[in-house]
Amino acid sequence: MTPGTVDRRTGVRARMSREGRREQLLDIGVQLLATRPLEELSIELLSDQAGISRGLLYHYFGNKQEFHVAVVRRAVGDVYAITAPQDLEDPLAQLVASLGAYLDYVQEHHVGYLSLVRAAHGPNEELRAIYEDARNALVDRVFARVDGLEALGVADSPATRLLARSWAALVEDAVLAWVADPGGMERAALLERLAGALVVLIAPPA
Amino acid sequence: MTPGTVDRRTGVRARMSREGRREQLLDIGVQLLATRPLEELSIELLSDQAGISRGLLYHYFGNKQEFHVAVVRRAVGDVYAITAPQDLEDPLAQLVASLGAYLDYVQEHHVGYLSLVRAAHGPNEELRAIYEDARNALVDRVFARVDGLEALGVADSPATRLLARSWAALVEDAVLAWVADPGGMERAALLERLAGALVVLIAPPA
Repeated sequence: MTPGTVDRRTGVRARMSREGRREQLLDIGVQLLATRPLEELSIELLSDQAGISRGLLYHYFGNKQEFHVAVVRRAVGDVYAITAPQDLEDPLAQLVASLGAYLDYVQEHHVGYLSLVRAAHGPNEELRAIYEDARNALVDRVFARVDGLEALGVADSPATRLLARSWAALVEDAVLAWVADPGGMERAALLERLAGALVVLIAPPA
Repeated sequence: MTPGTVDRRTGVRARMSREGRREQLLDIGVQLLATRPLEELSIELLSDQAGISRGLLYHYFGNKQEFHVAVVRRAVGDVYAITAPQDLEDPLAQLVASLGAYLDYVQEHHVGYLSLVRAAHGPNEELRAIYEDARNALVDRVFARVDGLEALGVADSPATRLLARSWAALVEDAVLAWVADPGGMERAALLERLAGALVVLIAPPA
């Protein structure tokens, strides 16, 4: 759907807030990111896809760089949302479920997600900060489930947070590699290994 | 020592091969990388440190970009060399020893190593390729110790190699974070957790 879409049944042009239109444009931006790297996302391409003028897009995003930042912010927000805990009782089952949701997202947006990760490691400090904030938020959520962690004997400490953040680097690298070529490994096996690695990293030694 | 150094005792200017001089200049480049990011390594800085003319340096490295590539190649070669197995019988003890050598290297070259890792994730395909080759070589070495892996019940398969390469991403992230701020975690504890994570990732489930 494009901003200000005409409803086919009523012929009425939907009146949307500026924020609503911007969100729709970001939807399209993230969809484009499914099959294209971030650096190929241009205002021109968005204009073609959304069927609105470049001028209007500059009104929403200022410039290409701001558009990229907004798309990355939206994509990491999507990842955060789809990996939300479903209140499974077993903390390990919950972890595997969230990892599975993450894997599915990366699979659906492989080209763009890979470019996003590369961009987040590049020289652009704003993209790096968005990406690091997102990773920290994901780790915070792991530690917010105190009951589950206590069941595993895990303390919330700077050391366990450091290890959990680095575990997120493992997950990202492994999921991107697996999506590119699973090497004969089942999805469930990958998720179990990754979840098991977190336990070894942050649970106290036996 | 600079290329063509005059020996203080004999007054004889050492005659060095082109390759030997280039290696000495790379020694200085890697030393500079200990306290400076890669992007600050200029031909001018190297010229000051080595006490030789810029013109001669351009003779060895062509341009700044080639100089950076040569320094990165040398640095990853150093990492490969210092993490060489010491033929410890226990494969886990060997793994911890190699991880410790890696950690010490990162600690000594923190600023430069961090910038190297960032550069390797950036848009420069040549730096990325050198870095990925180095990671693959490190993983190959893990799998070359067939006896040790067999003792752990690990099969050499595309899946276990995928997981071992991603484990290397975990190690890199955790070691860089720990060097920046250990968060109260002992060096030995970090190394043990990281080694334990590899076992969980690549050893068959019980």
